[in-house]
Amino acid sequence: MKAREKGITVGKLPTGVKNCITDVEGVKVGHVTLDLPLDEFGNDYACTGVTAILPHGGNLFNEKVTAASHVINGFGKTTGLVQLNELGVLESPIMLTNTFAVPAVTQGTLEYMLGENPEIGDTTGTINIVVGECNDSYLNSIRLFPVKPEHAKEAIMKASGHQAREGAVGAGKGMICFGYKGGIGSSSRVVEDFTVGCLVLSNFGKIEEFRAFQYDGKNGFSETADGSIIIVLATNAPLSDRQLQRVAKRCGIGLGRVGSHFSHGSGDIVIAFSTAEKISHFAEELTETRIQIREDSLVMNQLFTAAAEAVEEAILNSLSQAGTTKGRAGRVVNHLNFLKEE
Amino acid sequence: MKAREKGITVGKLPTGVKNCITDVEGVKVGHVTLDLPLDEFGNDYACTGVTAILPHGGNLFNEKVTAASHVINGFGKTTGLVQLNELGVLESPIMLTNTFAVPAVTQGTLEYMLGENPEIGDTTGTINIVVGECNDSYLNSIRLFPVKPEHAKEAIMKASGHQAREGAVGAGKGMICFGYKGGIGSSSRVVEDFTVGCLVLSNFGKIEEFRAFQYDGKNGFSETADGSIIIVLATNAPLSDRQLQRVAKRCGIGLGRVGSHFSHGSGDIVIAFSTAEKISHFAEELTETRIQIREDSLVMNQLFTAAAEAVEEAILNSLSQAGTTKGRAGRVVNHLNFLKEE
Amino acid sequence: MKAREKGITVGKLPTGVKNCITDVEGVKVGHVTLDLPLDEFGNDYACTGVTAILPHGGNLFNEKVTAASHVINGFGKTTGLVQLNELGVLESPIMLTNTFAVPAVTQGTLEYMLGENPEIGDTTGTINIVVGECNDSYLNSIRLFPVKPEHAKEAIMKASGHQAREGAVGAGKGMICFGYKGGIGSSSRVVEDFTVGCLVLSNFGKIEEFRAFQYDGKNGFSETADGSIIIVLATNAPLSDRQLQRVAKRCGIGLGRVGSHFSHGSGDIVIAFSTAEKISHFAEELTETRIQIREDSLVMNQLFTAAAEAVEEAILNSLSQAGTTKGRAGRVVNHLNFLKEE
Amino acid sequence: MKAREKGITVGKLPTGVKNCITDVEGVKVGHVTLDLPLDEFGNDYACTGVTAILPHGGNLFNEKVTAASHVINGFGKTTGLVQLNELGVLESPIMLTNTFAVPAVTQGTLEYMLGENPEIGDTTGTINIVVGECNDSYLNSIRLFPVKPEHAKEAIMKASGHQAREGAVGAGKGMICFGYKGGIGSSSRVVEDFTVGCLVLSNFGKIEEFRAFQYDGKNGFSETADGSIIIVLATNAPLSDRQLQRVAKRCGIGLGRVGSHFSHGSGDIVIAFSTAEKISHFAEELTETRIQIREDSLVMNQLFTAAAEAVEEAILNSLSQAGTTKGRAGRVVNHLNFLKEE
Repeated sequence: MKAREKGITVGKLPTGVKNCITDVEGVKVGHVTLDLPLDEFGNDYACTGVTAILPHGGNLFNEKVTAASHVINGFGKTTGLVQLNELGVLESPIMLTNTFAVPAVTQGTLEYMLGENPEIGDTTGTINIVVGECNDSYLNSIRLFPVKPEHAKEAIMKASGHQAREGAVGAGKGMICFGYKGGIGSSSRVVEDFTVGCLVLSNFGKIEEFRAFQYDGKNGFSETADGSIIIVLATNAPLSDRQLQRVAKRCGIGLGRVGSHFSHGSGDIVIAFSTAEKISHFAEELTETRIQIREDSLVMNQLFTAAAEAVEEAILNSLSQAGTTKGRAGRVVNHLNFLKEE
Repeated sequence: MKAREKGITVGKLPTGVKNCITDVEGVKVGHVTLDLPLDEFGNDYACTGVTAILPHGGNLFNEKVTAASHVINGFGKTTGLVQLNELGVLESPIMLTNTFAVPAVTQGTLEYMLGENPEIGDTTGTINIVVGECNDSYLNSIRLFPVKPEHAKEAIMKASGHQAREGAVGAGKGMICFGYKGGIGSSSRVVEDFTVGCLVLSNFGKIEEFRAFQYDGKNGFSETADGSIIIVLATNAPLSDRQLQRVAKRCGIGLGRVGSHFSHGSGDIVIAFSTAEKISHFAEELTETRIQIREDSLVMNQLFTAAAEAVEEAILNSLSQAGTTKGRAGRVVNHLNFLKEE
Repeated sequence: MKAREKGITVGKLPTGVKNCITDVEGVKVGHVTLDLPLDEFGNDYACTGVTAILPHGGNLFNEKVTAASHVINGFGKTTGLVQLNELGVLESPIMLTNTFAVPAVTQGTLEYMLGENPEIGDTTGTINIVVGECNDSYLNSIRLFPVKPEHAKEAIMKASGHQAREGAVGAGKGMICFGYKGGIGSSSRVVEDFTVGCLVLSNFGKIEEFRAFQYDGKNGFSETADGSIIIVLATNAPLSDRQLQRVAKRCGIGLGRVGSHFSHGSGDIVIAFSTAEKISHFAEELTETRIQIREDSLVMNQLFTAAAEAVEEAILNSLSQAGTTKGRAGRVVNHLNFLKEE
Repeated sequence: MKAREKGITVGKLPTGVKNCITDVEGVKVGHVTLDLPLDEFGNDYACTGVTAILPHGGNLFNEKVTAASHVINGFGKTTGLVQLNELGVLESPIMLTNTFAVPAVTQGTLEYMLGENPEIGDTTGTINIVVGECNDSYLNSIRLFPVKPEHAKEAIMKASGHQAREGAVGAGKGMICFGYKGGIGSSSRVVEDFTVGCLVLSNFGKIEEFRAFQYDGKNGFSETADGSIIIVLATNAPLSDRQLQRVAKRCGIGLGRVGSHFSHGSGDIVIAFSTAEKISHFAEELTETRIQIREDSLVMNQLFTAAAEAVEEAILNSLSQAGTTKGRAGRVVNHLNFLKEE
């Protein structure tokens, strides 16, 4: 169940129909989940996966979208931000996985994109792949590299615009949030004619920090507040890369409201994109025309609010949707029962 | 009364003795408040002032302190950050005032520092003055420039290490927060042997956004969430400039928790310094030795938590301490009554 | 004489008609120069001034232009960059002066802009003034504050689109470059239908570093490579703020080519703007349309080249146009004679 | 032959004994070069490789070094900068390769480091791998992924402190600079008791832009100025991460002086580290002591100069040392003959 179904309401803005990042038209999400023993005793265990977020269903290299990133805390191995920041565009799916699977997932995504685009690396330039990660090594035998390039391709091919599955699924399979089972969570907000959607991979925090609601917290894992969160923000509002970055900076508000202090060992990273305009790779014109929200319109502030609210609710959903999960060395991370609000 | 005296407790870390930025040993605060009609009808009115924060009581140019800044949202006119960011040091008091008084306060502070240091601009280089501001033009006749350079000097000379006055005082005289009277607020936290102190100049938010506690909110001013907040963070923990910036980035957590969405028109800026080491202007040595907290010690995370908590509580104090205030054109901004928590 | 008239050619792109920043249509430059003894012996001397660069001849607050900045080295006191960076617009003239005159010039510019715009600070928000500076204290009695707010207003009002005066004029009056007389220099380049214009305030370098041409270098001042340079870049090419920042980053190339190593004590700062679009302060629409150069067009690279070339030549012009100048305490800084190339 | 042996002298500072990055004590360089047909006709060809730079010969994870990065132009896929920037340390070798080999090289380096450190990903946290790249697709069949993880391990294991091989070797095998054969180049400078060493992977520029010396330029490849350069800067001077970043920012000066305009499609990235202090991963102390150069000492400026000079000369060495090279589809890139200076 989503947190909202349990009586938890975050903020004042209305959600989209699915309360999911896929409320932003065209956005697709795909998961591949690994859940299998890697030896006969189960001491080594694959409790991990891959999640793909596609800005649209077309050719992502040929039709790029405006994008921005914001590093809340940079203890992380996200790849692809250098070029995304320089050019303000995204030309690949955004892939999520575990920390040590970044090379395999980058490789698989690269192979997928090369398959779609025979010009890349031959008659045109290269391509920038964006992969975010969190460390699931408490439950997952991360040193054994269970994620392979094929899993990345599969996640991309499975992506759909339906309600995304949440919790212990895809890259979220082995993640831990506030000492309980976290992982994938999603939410959305509607502002005038625009939608803001958020998908998080949550893997941070100690239960002592949790501020969001009453809970039954006897069975938490409690080693560290370190971990990470990757926040993907999508919108169909027409925003420049600078404006998108401003929206991305508000995501830390939602993260702070659930209780995070952006702990030292946490890679807390936001990647935001707008689907409002497709930027063609092969265009020949000297100039292009872009539409953007007027900076001082009320909608700009509402988009800020939407980002903060959607992040907060997506994190809560990552908790409410994630079931108790077993991993390596017989370890178990429990579902967080939270008590219904009145 | 401070918020804590009204039953509002923020976070879990203990406060310092005074629950004030001056709990950080050596730090001094001084205010000059202007509250007078500028014409015979009071249509024009000086409802403004200057606040000075001194990192220590010695010669600030000769004995610089490590410093960092963080721009949460840059719709603001704070001056002095270019050099502070490049060199990681602060060599002047941090001055706070209204937006249009930045030149006058910079001038006055410069004159004060030149008076203290005859070498500056003659036999040694120049000096970097840091001034933060918020826009108090609802209550104050900002276009008439009531603040003069002398007020800056006076604020510096009046600075003391006692409990700082809060609310509608100094630069806080004309500020509005969540549609009620805001201004100067302060708080502190103790982490092991270290103290983190915070002083804010609060001038942001709409009452609809306020999340902190129950209140009686019938009489608020309600035009816009725009405004600004300047957050000054002091600590005696030994931190490098990069580490200080990491701590400064956590200040947005406290701001978000009271309800801000870092609105478009708000200049939300953090200036942080550490008093742990004095960096001599006239030293001759080739190298210098710096002590710093080990990045992955638990104390680092506690300092992050301390920053978030101190900012949140300082903002609440800026509200609880600020009385109903009259300004230009007969305008009044009310004190926010908040209902005692149980 | 301009460097080009002495046989020095920089780069391959053609210059504009005037080889001056005012080749960018609408851009205006105004200077006020102070050159007078401040005591009867001339030990104290005003050898300084103010230079104003206006992006266009209309109301700069009501019709903002796209802008960006780039800090090459941040040992400087330039004011106004926080908001310029956040919003990507310029809404005031760019003012240049000496380090300690920043408050006076900010004040004068603010007063000028308030005079033009009665709504600012009353019924609409505030205004962001941009002032750059270099330290002319070798020749100028900077501690005596000879520049007053009125000088800023005068520089703005005198601004015209004619060929700008160069050398020891305006803010350049007391500046020193490579140990010889520097100050104001300007140059321009034409790329397709677009013009890139540059105006510098040069005040950096030691003669030992100078790489640009053969010279007669017996009479140089030789204390330090520290100093500063403010680089103002104007173009009528339609560029987003991010694109403008990319162009601004190429200005360091020209600076390095004349010999600078961006020395520690130098405030080397670029402020760039595009006149292609006016952004209305009082518009009501939800969205706006912007035209921009396609990022991967050849023109983008040519604009990069144009920026590097224009900066290099503007610096050379600041030297070739600056005559031997007397200042405080009987000090003299000589004109750099450079030998005609073949 | 190095450029200096051909009579080209860059700057005024003395070089180290080897005029190579390995003049910085402890630094090691290793290359693996691939040069083989991938089909029977040689249409597909592996003309690429891997280069490893090790800050010291010990355990790089357990004994980290201070580090910083600077993105001159971000059209590139370098990985590992997010964490390097946040924490100011390097805990892996710096690996260089072709654009599409980044995942394979990251994977191989990760496997190598995991082999050395059984705690990583089990009882301690993860590890941040830094890989830089340029696009060698004109000569190399980049789409066929000839570089494998094993090549990365091999490059690390082959690393030595001897004079590094330059030119068409390691990651430099297939690179093109100014339309002629580029690749690996290295140089060093001595400043007081300190050494600054530089190693570049050069792959940028058009011959029309080349400014460094007279050449015989009839046989150049001439498609585009796009490409990339990765600049690795090493020093034994004790510098904080912020100071290292200041030094790193001066690398663009050397790049500009040879003729680059930091073209749009070029990933021009600097990674700098200091070997002066080892930062232990497993230390328990609350604080640590760091020594650093005093910011305003003359040595700081000399280090800036050293960085600019070493980069310029390293690029020239990458040209002078690189022989004519054959690659895919029968393509040939020629050695640049430059005429001896007098």
